[in-house]
Amino acid sequence: MKSEQLRELSVPTFSSRTAPGASTALDRWALTCIRRMVATARVRFLLWDGVESGPLSTSATPLVGTIVFRNRRALFSWLWDPDLYFGETYMFGAADIRGDLTAVLMEIYRALGRETRRSWWLWQRSNDEHAARENVHRHYDLGNAFYQRWLDREMAYTCAYFPTPGATLEEAQIAKMDRVCRKLALQPGERVLEAGCGWGGLALYMARHYGVTVRALNVSGEQIAYARDRARSEQLDDRVEFIEDDYREVRGQYDVFVSVGMLEHVGAADFPTLGAVIDRSLADRGRGLLHFIGRNRPSPLNPWIRKRIFPGAYPPTLAEVCDHVLAPWDFSVTDVENLRLHYAVTLDHWRTRFESAADDVAAMFDEAFVRAWRLYLAGSQAAFVTGSMQLFQVVFARGRSNAIPWTRFG
Amino acid sequence: MKSEQLRELSVPTFSSRTAPGASTALDRWALTCIRRMVATARVRFLLWDGVESGPLSTSATPLVGTIVFRNRRALFSWLWDPDLYFGETYMFGAADIRGDLTAVLMEIYRALGRETRRSWWLWQRSNDEHAARENVHRHYDLGNAFYQRWLDREMAYTCAYFPTPGATLEEAQIAKMDRVCRKLALQPGERVLEAGCGWGGLALYMARHYGVTVRALNVSGEQIAYARDRARSEQLDDRVEFIEDDYREVRGQYDVFVSVGMLEHVGAADFPTLGAVIDRSLADRGRGLLHFIGRNRPSPLNPWIRKRIFPGAYPPTLAEVCDHVLAPWDFSVTDVENLRLHYAVTLDHWRTRFESAADDVAAMFDEAFVRAWRLYLAGSQAAFVTGSMQLFQVVFARGRSNAIPWTRFG
Repeated sequence: MKSEQLRELSVPTFSSRTAPGASTALDRWALTCIRRMVATARVRFLLWDGVESGPLSTSATPLVGTIVFRNRRALFSWLWDPDLYFGETYMFGAADIRGDLTAVLMEIYRALGRETRRSWWLWQRSNDEHAARENVHRHYDLGNAFYQRWLDREMAYTCAYFPTPGATLEEAQIAKMDRVCRKLALQPGERVLEAGCGWGGLALYMARHYGVTVRALNVSGEQIAYARDRARSEQLDDRVEFIEDDYREVRGQYDVFVSVGMLEHVGAADFPTLGAVIDRSLADRGRGLLHFIGRNRPSPLNPWIRKRIFPGAYPPTLAEVCDHVLAPWDFSVTDVENLRLHYAVTLDHWRTRFESAADDVAAMFDEAFVRAWRLYLAGSQAAFVTGSMQLFQVVFARGRSNAIPWTRFG
Repeated sequence: MKSEQLRELSVPTFSSRTAPGASTALDRWALTCIRRMVATARVRFLLWDGVESGPLSTSATPLVGTIVFRNRRALFSWLWDPDLYFGETYMFGAADIRGDLTAVLMEIYRALGRETRRSWWLWQRSNDEHAARENVHRHYDLGNAFYQRWLDREMAYTCAYFPTPGATLEEAQIAKMDRVCRKLALQPGERVLEAGCGWGGLALYMARHYGVTVRALNVSGEQIAYARDRARSEQLDDRVEFIEDDYREVRGQYDVFVSVGMLEHVGAADFPTLGAVIDRSLADRGRGLLHFIGRNRPSPLNPWIRKRIFPGAYPPTLAEVCDHVLAPWDFSVTDVENLRLHYAVTLDHWRTRFESAADDVAAMFDEAFVRAWRLYLAGSQAAFVTGSMQLFQVVFARGRSNAIPWTRFG
């Protein structure tokens, strides 16, 4: 990780040099305003001097947790912009959460009610190639050693598929890769283009188990280096080519296009560009699969997640993907599956592994980094459990191609 | 069938009292213009006096068929508005098609190229309850005796599901109904609301095989009468209630909403209304299934089909259904399957049965009616084979409900 990133993450924006003193009438007014934003949540709020505000509804059900403000600046920053400063104050320890973090976040998501209905995608700036590289670098080049601490053996950093809820994460990531291959009905000798290949697990799996050749692109240098090493050591480098480049630069013709977990980073402004790349890359009988985090209704990603975790990211609706990636080139949607609850379980596994490695991670980065990632993982889990986020796998084919499976893979 | 409808169908708009005489230079110019609209189609055009225009491309592949204009008025009406007058001239015998009708229509669809990209749904008028009744009456009240001639035993007038392409139509319609039930994960004792129930086959199947109670609505009086008779004779009338009413009039709370083949008749202008009906009808853990003819891109239904076969109909895109029926009420799409090729096979069965009954149908109505339905069935088959039409089954659930199947039904 670059030192300037570490410095940025570590700036103690919310530390107070002096103790905040007793809370005032204004502080308690701010607390009441915050309390009202999540009126139905079974959580308690606590100020630095012990002043508290309980649930507004006099429910007999027990509290899920307590949110603690450690100083005045944290309190008023929440009032000013809760979407951003919830995360900021938490990561720097100026706010804290007692109780199970995911459970408290689920309470808050549910209490916040329905998402806004504005069509945010129009506001999105384009992620040009430079911005895309920067965005990916910020997240995916944190070091392979970091991700190895809490991902599965295949280094799959996307939603797994659990044949049963009790399957292991290793089993579930293999099952996910196999499911993608089966949905695409891969045939030996076919040419596959993968956009956004992560550490290369899926590309290697497709070549090994389905006999295809794969060209796999990714703008993360660290991931590509890791993937190439693996291809060589597994003697698959004659059939799997890992290329450090942007999806827009791809050339050639392919039978299959696949992208698992990249679309969220493309940004809605570039959906037509992605569609054009798929269109010029796919053969006449071609088909493809897009696996992405999505929404029921257009809604921006939480600003704190955009600032600290995923710059430039936007989880689209199914309709936005249909209208702006697929329809302009007459691609036909053949199959959609929503794996939202599978992502919730995936995140539960990641969280458990991440917490086991928390001390090591703090030593690699710092405590604010650990707290930021703890919040991101728990918040994502809460979002998938409460239905605020979806996970779509969309299979598509050329609109005029009848080379589509007669019955689908269950 | 009402006599005024019969009269309207029988008006010999394109008959000529006198023979058209030899073709002129102007006639041949018109023929060339028409020929250019479908330049790549391997079909020949022939005028009444034997003047012909072959394929423009000098392909070595054999011709698929010949289109014959029997008089000048037919020729120029095609030039004026081919989308409408292709059907009009064919049904009244002023134009004819030699060769396999579906194969010729497929050639034409493919040659016409990509659909227009305008968003036609904004132009749609609302199908209010009166218009909806009229539209349904025009098509579905042609008489049960007519439909019994060529539908399966269950009287299912929607796309079947063929476990293998060679399954019988009877098997495939049962398989479709069972597939719908399995996708909805019906449990004994659950309350199901069906909107647009046809002759009641699915409602009776759900009650008989899955132990649910069903309230099923339809504005077609003939269909409801048939369905009620069947419920009584099969002793299911204590669990299945058939109601002759508009979907907008439904009251009560249900666990499951299902609609097979109604959405195409709702019209895009009333999608939000349908969404609101589903929202107020479904319990908190409710889920639903929409089965409908759709498009990859917004496009109006062929004007001749709208005039003669399905007044008020509009096949929407998946995105339009997501955006206007489901998203406003935070319904979450959990599963989509495209059964386009299954509809092509379904239509092939219907066509074969219809042709076997053609003499009887002509006696019930007249020859123009037979030709109109022949064209509609063949044209629909061609549309599904060439990818101009889709058949979507969309399963959805309340956005906040986790009472969704862990793994989907294959």
